[in-house]
Amino acid sequence: MMSRRRILGIDPGSRVTGFGVIDVVGQQRLYVSSGCIRTPQGASLADRIKVIVEHLFEVIDTYQPDEAAVEQVFVNVNPAATLMLGQARGAAVTALVIRSLPVAEYTALQVKQSVVGHGKAPKEQVQAMIVRLLSLSGTPQSDAADALAVALAHANHSHSAVAAFTRQGLRIKGGRLA
Amino acid sequence: MMSRRRILGIDPGSRVTGFGVIDVVGQQRLYVSSGCIRTPQGASLADRIKVIVEHLFEVIDTYQPDEAAVEQVFVNVNPAATLMLGQARGAAVTALVIRSLPVAEYTALQVKQSVVGHGKAPKEQVQAMIVRLLSLSGTPQSDAADALAVALAHANHSHSAVAAFTRQGLRIKGGRLA
Repeated sequence: MMSRRRILGIDPGSRVTGFGVIDVVGQQRLYVSSGCIRTPQGASLADRIKVIVEHLFEVIDTYQPDEAAVEQVFVNVNPAATLMLGQARGAAVTALVIRSLPVAEYTALQVKQSVVGHGKAPKEQVQAMIVRLLSLSGTPQSDAADALAVALAHANHSHSAVAAFTRQGLRIKGGRLA
Repeated sequence: MMSRRRILGIDPGSRVTGFGVIDVVGQQRLYVSSGCIRTPQGASLADRIKVIVEHLFEVIDTYQPDEAAVEQVFVNVNPAATLMLGQARGAAVTALVIRSLPVAEYTALQVKQSVVGHGKAPKEQVQAMIVRLLSLSGTPQSDAADALAVALAHANHSHSAVAAFTRQGLRIKGGRLA
């Protein structure tokens, strides 16, 4: 039996937080779930954060990921928008930390390089690659696709490091080595 | 017996998050506790957030406040600093929301107006007023003082509304009315 790693990818945003769950089994990448968490506009900060955290807890408790990866957000020139983005990102990472998930961070450039092979790929090319890599029957919504992309980047990035650890017997979880 | 409201004030920052706990008993404002949560510089976002959330949970579980008030942060001109501030603020509010505390927000202007009587008061005057209002024997550290100030602002701001509620019997908690 091959070991399985389940990765939760998160693309935080002030209005929409995308999430994507994939399984890594050997060289295979398997789609598990993805979706978007929309925060109620005009609501208080506490109410918006409540929506993000409750939905993320539901996703984590349902799919039981082993690790999480978060996209490093674009720093907007508008300070108020940047603050809101930071708050949403802080809330999402807090939910991951409270559920004791290790959290890795990737820039948009790293995600594109990992998924498509070069950092200047347009959004459509990233989405097409996700559809192909995960054998999806349709294109996921944009924020969900970005979350799946960061999960895939983490799967590729951490593969060799994790393989090295497991070979040394430092990290064996859920069966024999892949 | 007078009813008691315990308020947790928070002053979030990217490096230091101040907290202050006060009791409101009738017209009295009583100091309970205050302090600073310092986030490890150079650590990952997840590790910094973990420090903020674990300390805030400890404060909440120890002092059992009924309500929380958070200072609306200064939006910095530096986008990276603003993002970090937003993340710290998002983490702090997430901790409050997870512990089911109602969260009120006040601008620095509202805090100064409430505590000192006018919005242009210098920091030192706010601190001196806190020492006087709470009969402190020394001046608390700057971030802790700001957190006590936002707690005091919430006590003053919400007093009349809460008094109206309690008079109508809608909110009676912990004994007879003040």
